[in-house]
Amino acid sequence: MASYASTTFKYYNVTNPAPYIVHVEINRPKKLNAFSPPMWVELKGIFERLSTDPDVRCILLSGAGDRAFTTGLDVEAASAKDATPIVAQDFVDPSRRATQLRRYILELQEAISVVARCEKPVIALLHGYAYGLGIDLSSACDMRFCLADTKFSVKEVDIGLAADVGTLSRLPKVVGGVTSWVKEVCMSARVFGADEAKDNGFVSRVVSGSKAELIQEGMQFAQYMATKSPVGVQGTKNILDAAWGRTVEDNLNYTAVWNAAMVQSSDVERAIMSGLRKKTPTFEKL
Amino acid sequence: MASYASTTFKYYNVTNPAPYIVHVEINRPKKLNAFSPPMWVELKGIFERLSTDPDVRCILLSGAGDRAFTTGLDVEAASAKDATPIVAQDFVDPSRRATQLRRYILELQEAISVVARCEKPVIALLHGYAYGLGIDLSSACDMRFCLADTKFSVKEVDIGLAADVGTLSRLPKVVGGVTSWVKEVCMSARVFGADEAKDNGFVSRVVSGSKAELIQEGMQFAQYMATKSPVGVQGTKNILDAAWGRTVEDNLNYTAVWNAAMVQSSDVERAIMSGLRKKTPTFEKL
Amino acid sequence: MASYASTTFKYYNVTNPAPYIVHVEINRPKKLNAFSPPMWVELKGIFERLSTDPDVRCILLSGAGDRAFTTGLDVEAASAKDATPIVAQDFVDPSRRATQLRRYILELQEAISVVARCEKPVIALLHGYAYGLGIDLSSACDMRFCLADTKFSVKEVDIGLAADVGTLSRLPKVVGGVTSWVKEVCMSARVFGADEAKDNGFVSRVVSGSKAELIQEGMQFAQYMATKSPVGVQGTKNILDAAWGRTVEDNLNYTAVWNAAMVQSSDVERAIMSGLRKKTPTFEKL
Amino acid sequence: MASYASTTFKYYNVTNPAPYIVHVEINRPKKLNAFSPPMWVELKGIFERLSTDPDVRCILLSGAGDRAFTTGLDVEAASAKDATPIVAQDFVDPSRRATQLRRYILELQEAISVVARCEKPVIALLHGYAYGLGIDLSSACDMRFCLADTKFSVKEVDIGLAADVGTLSRLPKVVGGVTSWVKEVCMSARVFGADEAKDNGFVSRVVSGSKAELIQEGMQFAQYMATKSPVGVQGTKNILDAAWGRTVEDNLNYTAVWNAAMVQSSDVERAIMSGLRKKTPTFEKL
Amino acid sequence: MASYASTTFKYYNVTNPAPYIVHVEINRPKKLNAFSPPMWVELKGIFERLSTDPDVRCILLSGAGDRAFTTGLDVEAASAKDATPIVAQDFVDPSRRATQLRRYILELQEAISVVARCEKPVIALLHGYAYGLGIDLSSACDMRFCLADTKFSVKEVDIGLAADVGTLSRLPKVVGGVTSWVKEVCMSARVFGADEAKDNGFVSRVVSGSKAELIQEGMQFAQYMATKSPVGVQGTKNILDAAWGRTVEDNLNYTAVWNAAMVQSSDVERAIMSGLRKKTPTFEKL
Amino acid sequence: MASYASTTFKYYNVTNPAPYIVHVEINRPKKLNAFSPPMWVELKGIFERLSTDPDVRCILLSGAGDRAFTTGLDVEAASAKDATPIVAQDFVDPSRRATQLRRYILELQEAISVVARCEKPVIALLHGYAYGLGIDLSSACDMRFCLADTKFSVKEVDIGLAADVGTLSRLPKVVGGVTSWVKEVCMSARVFGADEAKDNGFVSRVVSGSKAELIQEGMQFAQYMATKSPVGVQGTKNILDAAWGRTVEDNLNYTAVWNAAMVQSSDVERAIMSGLRKKTPTFEKL
Repeated sequence: MASYASTTFKYYNVTNPAPYIVHVEINRPKKLNAFSPPMWVELKGIFERLSTDPDVRCILLSGAGDRAFTTGLDVEAASAKDATPIVAQDFVDPSRRATQLRRYILELQEAISVVARCEKPVIALLHGYAYGLGIDLSSACDMRFCLADTKFSVKEVDIGLAADVGTLSRLPKVVGGVTSWVKEVCMSARVFGADEAKDNGFVSRVVSGSKAELIQEGMQFAQYMATKSPVGVQGTKNILDAAWGRTVEDNLNYTAVWNAAMVQSSDVERAIMSGLRKKTPTFEKL
Repeated sequence: MASYASTTFKYYNVTNPAPYIVHVEINRPKKLNAFSPPMWVELKGIFERLSTDPDVRCILLSGAGDRAFTTGLDVEAASAKDATPIVAQDFVDPSRRATQLRRYILELQEAISVVARCEKPVIALLHGYAYGLGIDLSSACDMRFCLADTKFSVKEVDIGLAADVGTLSRLPKVVGGVTSWVKEVCMSARVFGADEAKDNGFVSRVVSGSKAELIQEGMQFAQYMATKSPVGVQGTKNILDAAWGRTVEDNLNYTAVWNAAMVQSSDVERAIMSGLRKKTPTFEKL
Repeated sequence: MASYASTTFKYYNVTNPAPYIVHVEINRPKKLNAFSPPMWVELKGIFERLSTDPDVRCILLSGAGDRAFTTGLDVEAASAKDATPIVAQDFVDPSRRATQLRRYILELQEAISVVARCEKPVIALLHGYAYGLGIDLSSACDMRFCLADTKFSVKEVDIGLAADVGTLSRLPKVVGGVTSWVKEVCMSARVFGADEAKDNGFVSRVVSGSKAELIQEGMQFAQYMATKSPVGVQGTKNILDAAWGRTVEDNLNYTAVWNAAMVQSSDVERAIMSGLRKKTPTFEKL
Repeated sequence: MASYASTTFKYYNVTNPAPYIVHVEINRPKKLNAFSPPMWVELKGIFERLSTDPDVRCILLSGAGDRAFTTGLDVEAASAKDATPIVAQDFVDPSRRATQLRRYILELQEAISVVARCEKPVIALLHGYAYGLGIDLSSACDMRFCLADTKFSVKEVDIGLAADVGTLSRLPKVVGGVTSWVKEVCMSARVFGADEAKDNGFVSRVVSGSKAELIQEGMQFAQYMATKSPVGVQGTKNILDAAWGRTVEDNLNYTAVWNAAMVQSSDVERAIMSGLRKKTPTFEKL
Repeated sequence: MASYASTTFKYYNVTNPAPYIVHVEINRPKKLNAFSPPMWVELKGIFERLSTDPDVRCILLSGAGDRAFTTGLDVEAASAKDATPIVAQDFVDPSRRATQLRRYILELQEAISVVARCEKPVIALLHGYAYGLGIDLSSACDMRFCLADTKFSVKEVDIGLAADVGTLSRLPKVVGGVTSWVKEVCMSARVFGADEAKDNGFVSRVVSGSKAELIQEGMQFAQYMATKSPVGVQGTKNILDAAWGRTVEDNLNYTAVWNAAMVQSSDVERAIMSGLRKKTPTFEKL
Repeated sequence: MASYASTTFKYYNVTNPAPYIVHVEINRPKKLNAFSPPMWVELKGIFERLSTDPDVRCILLSGAGDRAFTTGLDVEAASAKDATPIVAQDFVDPSRRATQLRRYILELQEAISVVARCEKPVIALLHGYAYGLGIDLSSACDMRFCLADTKFSVKEVDIGLAADVGTLSRLPKVVGGVTSWVKEVCMSARVFGADEAKDNGFVSRVVSGSKAELIQEGMQFAQYMATKSPVGVQGTKNILDAAWGRTVEDNLNYTAVWNAAMVQSSDVERAIMSGLRKKTPTFEKL
């Protein structure tokens, strides 16, 4: 894990605060951690690496500074000349511009999907503003904890768009349906707070106090999960994510095929033996 | 929009209380807004027209009178001789009667599905009784707000039926799953109140006070949404509705194809420019 | 129904506390109702029979004794020599052991799926420990009520496994999504209580007081459902269960085909006539 | 059935050449049966009516004149000012034009889907040119027979389009996959003949001789089907069409629900008894 | 394998003509191998056992006698009083009869599905009549070879039914789509011959000559497959069967999970090493 | 396009034989174009680039030399120490090895999927041996033409494996189902020739003569497609590929959304106008 410490990332602090735990911090606090185009690319690279790193069992994702997880897309940067195809400079045949835009959207989606496909559990720790891309990104994480003062907004409608980087596809999955509340917040871009996020299942914990306490809450849960069998934890993530949009019958069969290999793990014997002997097991890297 | 004011509908009041807002009121208060067969046909026609009317950005749906959104199917009317195939008059070969019944059910479902497919956001405003068809119909809306005294019931089991006009297909979608509570209320037809509806995600707002205050709450939110980009709002509705029963991957791809055209909207530039200049944008009709 | 009273099951008490109601009690209280291999087989047989028994309209499922619904798999029994393929005795080619394990998992899943496919509504009544298999099993029921002191855990990660007998496939369905909370409890195996179970939609009722009061609550609701049309109730169950992982459009069509036969029921006429005459209908067996 | 004879359709001859058989002939031979906008509307109306007419058991669809089934869209008519949104007259915001186009395409698709959803079997009888819309339309039929001199082309690429009225969605279904051949003909718009159509499964019969012989071949098969149980024939169509894009397991379950009503048909008893007695059964209308 | 020889089945000859090969012969030649109700039960039991028997690598399924694979359902037996619910004896409430029929159909389907789910490859060897159930049954096999004189018919329409035991769900899968030909033969019950079966992909081989030569052709191919890695062969079957009705992306992921265990097989090393050394490998039982 | 000529690829010749046409030749003829691990990586890079290159409208894929398209995986190279995880060097916990294998298989699949997702049509030109990976790879292309002497084999079973890089997922799609023939060739690894490939729909053209004539046939068809609207051609590819494993209804809706942008293409007007004027249109790059 020392390797991350020695790697300098431009827009992220990647640290290793405890064994098996990696903390990824979006690090552009002066811009309220707003995302400029190159930040996507770097994010993708970081999570591709974390996904298969045997020294990693749990990842925390937060935003640097006191003010925001992220305010989302850096609209100014994104609409600069030639930065992205979002704002066209000159007239282009609409079908050809559509082709460019589709490629560009798929590319942005892929950066977020790399987070969603990360084999290790990822906990988003939200504070301050979590707007636009902040919802896309945290919806791609496994769990979301937030500070009591967090302000959330599915902001895209405010720039004339349906959110296209993941929120509309993943929010119904992570809060459980296309509820009246999901429609409200997605179709109006209205701001909502931590209590509403908790009541509607978007976050599972609201932490009162300082941002340090939020990080601490995340760290404790991450460390707790890191003591568990990584074969069990990572398999659970994979199977749960395959449940959405597929039938119970298909998911059961997939689970049986998955566990046909995974039950052969030494973790099972270690865990059972430790349980019978009331000892704490340790598990090989995965 | 003057067109709606000048059109007389037999069972609905259709008004235009504010620019871009249409209010559809089920208007058979003496029968507690119960649905007789011709009411389906008229409902379908109204929503087909609203769906593509560029002067409409948000629709409110409520029931006239103080006592009910709707008590559901007018059972007496529906079981009258020749009114519907629900109650057979004479013996018919069961396969032939099944064919007639299936056609009839598909036709009723289609009336409700027209509401669900309406391109514009629809807010159901519920008060008094919201029974049977009232659940089918409001489940097909995007959002549900209710008065604190509303009484709800998935009533169909009480007439010997599994609900077949949409509730069983859409309730799991709009409250987020086939939960213990969904099974309770659908399999027992027991009445539940506003708090239970809110706790289980069926409504997103419970309004205390009079019915006028409920309408006011709906109006305010409708007007707020109507200031937003219609390209963004209506695209959000379409994509969210396509999320259910499909995989995240399929929905992401669909979103990219959708937005390949929609990001070319003048709304995006207007919204971004207005945002940067701290002004309120206005958007072309859609 | 006298038939159940006269049948002796080894691991279950199957009684008939009221007309149309069957109570299945897991009966191995000394082992906290932990499941040994033969208990699966017997469970499957009982529910296959209940599913089509016309004298049954609602089933209660609980655990004997004061201490537990069930603590889950009897790990000691399961890991005994030759008891199950979970712990291998000698080296086996991993592909061949995978084949045996897959068959074994599919067989266990099938026992739970028989409960899920039971045509009659099943209410799980949970108290004390509801761990591991207790979650798999109660997720396969239609409703879950619990005592205020119940302790829940998706325990499998603690034995080095992703839960493979149904929890990961059905929990997102019964609580409504792959929420932050679902990921928390499934990936950490942490214990949670009745309030958390209620807030997150896993149980729909938390009963304060003694276990007898829990059974009473279940009995009352079961008896209430048993007064309703069995054609309506059982059809509702079938259609709701087909909603998950399929589109609204497919479910609507399925519902129409289902009801094409079922609306021909004498229950419809009896229910409607009784309703108009303010009398209580009775329905033929199903 | 006399009703069709007495109804005058503008673009179609609808006749009743034999009991239970309706022949729909596209009747614009001077324009090689090319489709102008109002022809869609009329087509839809005709098939909606045929679908539920108990006097109809089989439908033949062909083109009037010696030269063509249909050459497809009447491009000149479609690109006339204000005729359709296909060719824009003035600059329109691309997102708003996309909205209009999407609505228009869905409307055209619906006309073809009405043919596909027609409850009765439809046999397309193809001769001369079967281009563009001719493929969309005949792919929506159940069977396709053709004359040996028929020329086919998935023509849309030649007007700068991916075919959007049904061919791309239904051709893989009716020829069995996204084969090398399907890609060839859809991506190049190259013309192919009857033998190629037969070899690749698009038509099931190639008739040598005159157009009259083709109609005769269709008539004979239609009359043969019309002697069979309409409950059996029409159920077979419905279930086969539900097979595509769904799993075998889902289709089996759907079939069981369908036949739960349909096996109660008097047709079953009549057919079995007639079979045992070596007599020809007759069946009630459906 | 001697076990099968020593087991006497009432309606089937089950033999072991060569190592790893089992031949199941439907043995009711006097009735042209027509299926009476108890034959389903026995068939299911046989294939459940063969599926996991490590001494079995390939199964041949044929019909005894010179005249038929099977003429399908023994209609006389099936319509006898109390034999099946297909022909009702007295009036029953249609919803209750539908419930019985649905259960009965699901039970019959399950017998055929046991053949389809058999882990080992099954080759149907068809001769004489292959009618009705003969199509259901052989569609559930992996491969179909036939004699040149075989007569096929999807016969169900002739008894007033849509085929409900598997043909309509599996025929589009095994011939590749809902082709014009599939519709023809399923909606008309017309008889077709070996050449038509071959041209349309239903059988992959047509054998000229005697029934003994057909059995010989099956035996040779079965023995050839039996020399191959059973891990490879049986995995191929499982993955191919999961392809239908699911997306390429889902099937690719499923394949990767499946092979994560299976590539660890000793078969891989043996096969590769034998290949490099130009020797014939032998493989452990599976 | 000069760019490809000036780029040297290690294992592929990438040339530009005509405007808009790129020819990718697998270039390891001494090893019969067998694939070693680094060849995957290079293949992926080439097709990622071709996919969005506006100067490319059609791609030909063939193998260098006279003897083979490709014999598939270079088994010797793949089983060398540390080359791939296919052959384990030492004992590893089966669950951990499964994790490595799954990652590795997904990575290989992705290389082939890049070919399948390439936005431009790809024609595989097959000669000599097309074994194993040769089937995976050509199944990911849009069309397959072959020389009359080509020998094909789904070879994986011969190395103890179910094919996991794409054949089992894509072959049923490109030949149209899980036919008897698909099962035969996938479960036995038996060699088949060009006629069998043509009869079963795997190739759409068999070329007699020399390899040069095969390349010529591909070139002619590629050049023909390159004269067509690239918006039409590439949209057709995208929509056809989305048809498999999804319902007709979903594919129709997807098509409407796709074409809402694409019909705005200048290609439509150019194509229509050229058609009316009997001229040959030219189209802008895409």
